[in-house]
Amino acid sequence: MKKLLIDMDGVISDIYTQFIKYEQEDLGITQTAASLNGKLENEAFRNHDNYVTSKGFFFNAPPILESINVVRQLNDKYDLFIVSAAIQYPNSLQEKLDWLAKHFPFINWKQIVFCGSKSVVCGDIMIDDHFKNLDSFNGQTILFNQPHNFGKDAKLHTRAETWAEIAKILL
Amino acid sequence: MKKLLIDMDGVISDIYTQFIKYEQEDLGITQTAASLNGKLENEAFRNHDNYVTSKGFFFNAPPILESINVVRQLNDKYDLFIVSAAIQYPNSLQEKLDWLAKHFPFINWKQIVFCGSKSVVCGDIMIDDHFKNLDSFNGQTILFNQPHNFGKDAKLHTRAETWAEIAKILL
Repeated sequence: MKKLLIDMDGVISDIYTQFIKYEQEDLGITQTAASLNGKLENEAFRNHDNYVTSKGFFFNAPPILESINVVRQLNDKYDLFIVSAAIQYPNSLQEKLDWLAKHFPFINWKQIVFCGSKSVVCGDIMIDDHFKNLDSFNGQTILFNQPHNFGKDAKLHTRAETWAEIAKILL
Repeated sequence: MKKLLIDMDGVISDIYTQFIKYEQEDLGITQTAASLNGKLENEAFRNHDNYVTSKGFFFNAPPILESINVVRQLNDKYDLFIVSAAIQYPNSLQEKLDWLAKHFPFINWKQIVFCGSKSVVCGDIMIDDHFKNLDSFNGQTILFNQPHNFGKDAKLHTRAETWAEIAKILL
């Protein structure tokens, strides 16, 4: 079985919805695609660090459309791991475990990796929304569409706009 | 720089001292090398699962002799990661971060990996006390002496009894 590594934030967890909601409540600003596109999250949301360290930010994020259904099918076909660069925000660790247990109960603890840098994980296929993680990965790479990577050249990575597209590629 | 992966429990964190202490307090039993050798931790300590899920078990473990001094020097020479199969015990995650911050403050968050299975981490050298982690690792492997691996054939791994021996091999 091929090893498939799937990122959390921005790939199965819709943290943009959380950022937008938190900023509306915090600053009364409602950002649009035009204001978000091409900017990293901490550039787009000025109080980014406050939000990601708030209790509930990660736990209450909605899953990304169709991700549960497709990941469930991929889990039968691949040696699948959820790999999240979560160590930077220690409060997120328990919330991310709880979030996975709630939305992806078919993922067991042996399939979860929380790291700082993804340079130490290896496998055959990586799905991620950040170039910094995909560029150094020695395998097939799928760039998941998010505002911060919008309009950028996908380089050697395959860009996927939706989980339906990933299903077409990997199932 | 070569990537060096170092395990926590039984390699830098002296959890045997914790197990023995907890069992003394819990059951009034004081185990010796003879009663521990060759048995996995959950075979040697009958209330193992209660201990590892107790608040403070991981945070209060003493560092293994000389580990801090040698890891500090290795940190200058290698691309070093602390890799712990910690996801099985979610309560251990924050304690392990706090323990590292206390005893190994020179290790930054980018160097920490908490996983379920170590089959998804890769690098050039792995130091671990468990065969299950070393056997599938595609690189140089050092088996750190612990009662559970005592007397077993080290196979293709280099056995190290102390951190001074690791220093001789890697520094």
